[in-house]
Amino acid sequence: MTDSSLAAFTARCQARVETALNRCLPSIDGQPGQLHAAMRYAVLGGGKRIRPTLVYATAEAIGVAPDTVDAPACAVELIHAYSLIHDDLPAMDDDDLRRGRPTCHRAFDEATAILAGDALQTLAFEILVNNDQVPTSARLAMVASLTQASGHRGMVGGQALDLAAAGRGLDREQLETIHRQKTGALIRAAVRMATQADPNLDPAIADRLERYAVCLGLAFQVRDDILDIEGETAVIGKTQGKDRDQAKATYPALLGLDGAKRATEELVAEALACVADRPAAADPLRQLAHYIVHRDH
Amino acid sequence: MTDSSLAAFTARCQARVETALNRCLPSIDGQPGQLHAAMRYAVLGGGKRIRPTLVYATAEAIGVAPDTVDAPACAVELIHAYSLIHDDLPAMDDDDLRRGRPTCHRAFDEATAILAGDALQTLAFEILVNNDQVPTSARLAMVASLTQASGHRGMVGGQALDLAAAGRGLDREQLETIHRQKTGALIRAAVRMATQADPNLDPAIADRLERYAVCLGLAFQVRDDILDIEGETAVIGKTQGKDRDQAKATYPALLGLDGAKRATEELVAEALACVADRPAAADPLRQLAHYIVHRDH
Repeated sequence: MTDSSLAAFTARCQARVETALNRCLPSIDGQPGQLHAAMRYAVLGGGKRIRPTLVYATAEAIGVAPDTVDAPACAVELIHAYSLIHDDLPAMDDDDLRRGRPTCHRAFDEATAILAGDALQTLAFEILVNNDQVPTSARLAMVASLTQASGHRGMVGGQALDLAAAGRGLDREQLETIHRQKTGALIRAAVRMATQADPNLDPAIADRLERYAVCLGLAFQVRDDILDIEGETAVIGKTQGKDRDQAKATYPALLGLDGAKRATEELVAEALACVADRPAAADPLRQLAHYIVHRDH
Repeated sequence: MTDSSLAAFTARCQARVETALNRCLPSIDGQPGQLHAAMRYAVLGGGKRIRPTLVYATAEAIGVAPDTVDAPACAVELIHAYSLIHDDLPAMDDDDLRRGRPTCHRAFDEATAILAGDALQTLAFEILVNNDQVPTSARLAMVASLTQASGHRGMVGGQALDLAAAGRGLDREQLETIHRQKTGALIRAAVRMATQADPNLDPAIADRLERYAVCLGLAFQVRDDILDIEGETAVIGKTQGKDRDQAKATYPALLGLDGAKRATEELVAEALACVADRPAAADPLRQLAHYIVHRDH
């Protein structure tokens, strides 16, 4: 699979999930209009859609049709979008820009942003439970995966650990724990929910795909830390150098820039090894792993 | 059923749900400690537990054992608790007191309060999906009920409508729409989830119990508005007269104090009519309806 075929695959997934998200989000004409507008603004405002793309790529790797996983693709993106809204709030990261546009509480107001985040979380689970493309046992399994990944043991717990760690020295293990929860858990859930769409999937294959996701999630975060140092605000769409300014523990700070780059490559190599025995249908998963190391935003 | 037997029933439900909540909330010793502490503080800090009590009372009325509905009893209370945390935030109602104690963001900090609310919402759905006391179809039905009641079409939508209405004149229909969503939806979900614990329940009975809940929820809100005028801060545990100070639309403002009291009585009468043909096991539901009209906090 070439770079251009990954670009084509990603574009297809982005278009697909955009349509599905547009359909599941409440109409701008309905009441309360301000809440609906804020929900749509935060979700439909672009973004790389990496988590939905992982859902579709995993589905393709195991021969599951994309319609079957539109619901988990949307659900994982809704959780991601809600977390960004709340992360950007003045009491949290106090960010004015997100994806190159005003953050939700800047475009609307703080109260609306809090509520829009709350409603997007609810909507994520509502979509999973109403996904009539899969049997009830698979729906339940997906809700279980997504709750585990996004609650106090997952994403929200990681955010709280991250806040508590601000300005304090961390070792690599502590930093990894934060990232495994804060960003890794959702990436893992994206892959896991796709495997749960096929109740007959060999559990050993599901386990290796999840391991792929764990490595990929961590590599993604290390690359994020590197980009925060190397990238330019215009390209990454948020204020550059922010982590360093806030004295946050990062991989480059712990391992040096070269050490962090080596860590990314090792993680990606392990991710690739997890899908090495999979057929050509797993090419998007392989290409996504390569992309992580080389992306510049 | 006398007043004292309602008190005994309520005390049993409160103790029961307290034990169940204590078990499902993350340990204070685990990491991130601050997040866990805030979650426990907000949930275990007392409160009337009206929604869980309604779950147990409905279960009793249809002959379902209380263990079977511990999960929905906890889940509905977790959603309620999360909404109070977020409602109290400076960007929303900016309240310093809740149940006579500092609000969550006062006892901890704003970022922790936002995250604790987020994690409590997730936990509510996690508990429902892992409720092995009921078949998978009932679990899915409960998640569907609770997502519908708490998201943009339910509680969060009602809060957004309420915010948008601040300082503006509303007619009775508009005020009812707000309350039907903001507080009514969750009360209705409490009763509905209890009926869903028995997949063989006659749908006509389930419908009448839901209608009971709709009337009860609205009566509860009208009584809240009356108490805001008549009650004292010490008794209701929040700053009294706040609605009037903020020029919020209320039932007493629309209907007069006597009109609002009559409205409560009519709603309670309709609620009672909905359970009139039920056996003695429905006495707690009847007594709860009476309590709504007479409660002073």
